[in-house]
Amino acid sequence: MTGRFLSLEGGEGAGKSTQVRALAAALESRGLSVRVTREPGGSEGAEAIRTLLMQGEVSRWGARAEALLFAAARSDHVDKVIRPALEAGTWVITDRFIDSTRAYQGAAGGLDDASIMALHGFGSRGLLPDRTFILDLPVAEGSRRAALRDGAGADRFAQRSPHFHADVGRAFRTFAVREPGRFRIVDAGRSPGDVTALLLSELSDLLP
Amino acid sequence: MTGRFLSLEGGEGAGKSTQVRALAAALESRGLSVRVTREPGGSEGAEAIRTLLMQGEVSRWGARAEALLFAAARSDHVDKVIRPALEAGTWVITDRFIDSTRAYQGAAGGLDDASIMALHGFGSRGLLPDRTFILDLPVAEGSRRAALRDGAGADRFAQRSPHFHADVGRAFRTFAVREPGRFRIVDAGRSPGDVTALLLSELSDLLP
Repeated sequence: MTGRFLSLEGGEGAGKSTQVRALAAALESRGLSVRVTREPGGSEGAEAIRTLLMQGEVSRWGARAEALLFAAARSDHVDKVIRPALEAGTWVITDRFIDSTRAYQGAAGGLDDASIMALHGFGSRGLLPDRTFILDLPVAEGSRRAALRDGAGADRFAQRSPHFHADVGRAFRTFAVREPGRFRIVDAGRSPGDVTALLLSELSDLLP
Repeated sequence: MTGRFLSLEGGEGAGKSTQVRALAAALESRGLSVRVTREPGGSEGAEAIRTLLMQGEVSRWGARAEALLFAAARSDHVDKVIRPALEAGTWVITDRFIDSTRAYQGAAGGLDDASIMALHGFGSRGLLPDRTFILDLPVAEGSRRAALRDGAGADRFAQRSPHFHADVGRAFRTFAVREPGRFRIVDAGRSPGDVTALLLSELSDLLP
């Protein structure tokens, strides 16, 4: 039996990495084999591409080159890590996946969704998660949390304007409305323990 | 008036970089402004991607991730270097361009040409050279010359099998037959001076 593929999405500071770890621990305590990963990155080649994507000036890459780099990194991540794990029966939980590219480079960055999905079809054969959680938080609160966490070390994406981050949040909510089967929106303003409990309850239909 | 865009293509050891320089000197002596460049690379971002592409094991990247990285590098090269130069009236001569991806990752690497051209349409708005020269040389002779030049420093592509390189050469000749307006095949076994003279004579319709 193949594993299930879960992604956590949301803006900066929404608590994705904390919830990825908490959800993995909860699933492991039920006897499941779980692999935690993240994007951009998650495989040796994709982490090398991540360095190119996250460092430097906001204007370092044009929107199209950036989308191609994300697609290349995701292709490597899917081929080398995600598909082999799923085929071995391991559940995979990733901190960001294709919906981040659709929100950041697509809705907020000006590229059309069909082109981004075409790149995903080419690079990763269109692999989609079985369930995607949107950790939803007001932009101001997410920025405050991210600033506390990162200090002066904000990356090329965290440096963008509040307007850009508001577009990202709106895009995630729109995806969830359009594809209610795959997506669940979770209020990330609640306590970490409450959020983890909500994620688990929204997985009940997938659990063995 | 915009500049003209020329590419030189061919297998390893065909003399492309020598001919790019000789052709640039010949065009400059006629009063033209010329910019010489190369792929993968040619811009700051694309050179960083080049490092990822050329180093490591032959199997470092899957065919699809590799094609996406080439498309990302080309997008940056076109946006930052090639289009601005052409718009300023400068002629651009590049050592490799889209036809190398079509030959190496496409015909010899197993990806279909339509997908590669779709990535090029997305990343570089489908920019094609005004003229493309195929420097044609038997594979054994090209490999001998490349080995003399590179010693033990062969990159991920030069390390491939003679069968692979034969597929690449066949692909280039096929492109030239299908698109006789853009392509010219030149016998790279002749002396460097003879080859340069042939290139110039095959540009007479483009020269002012």
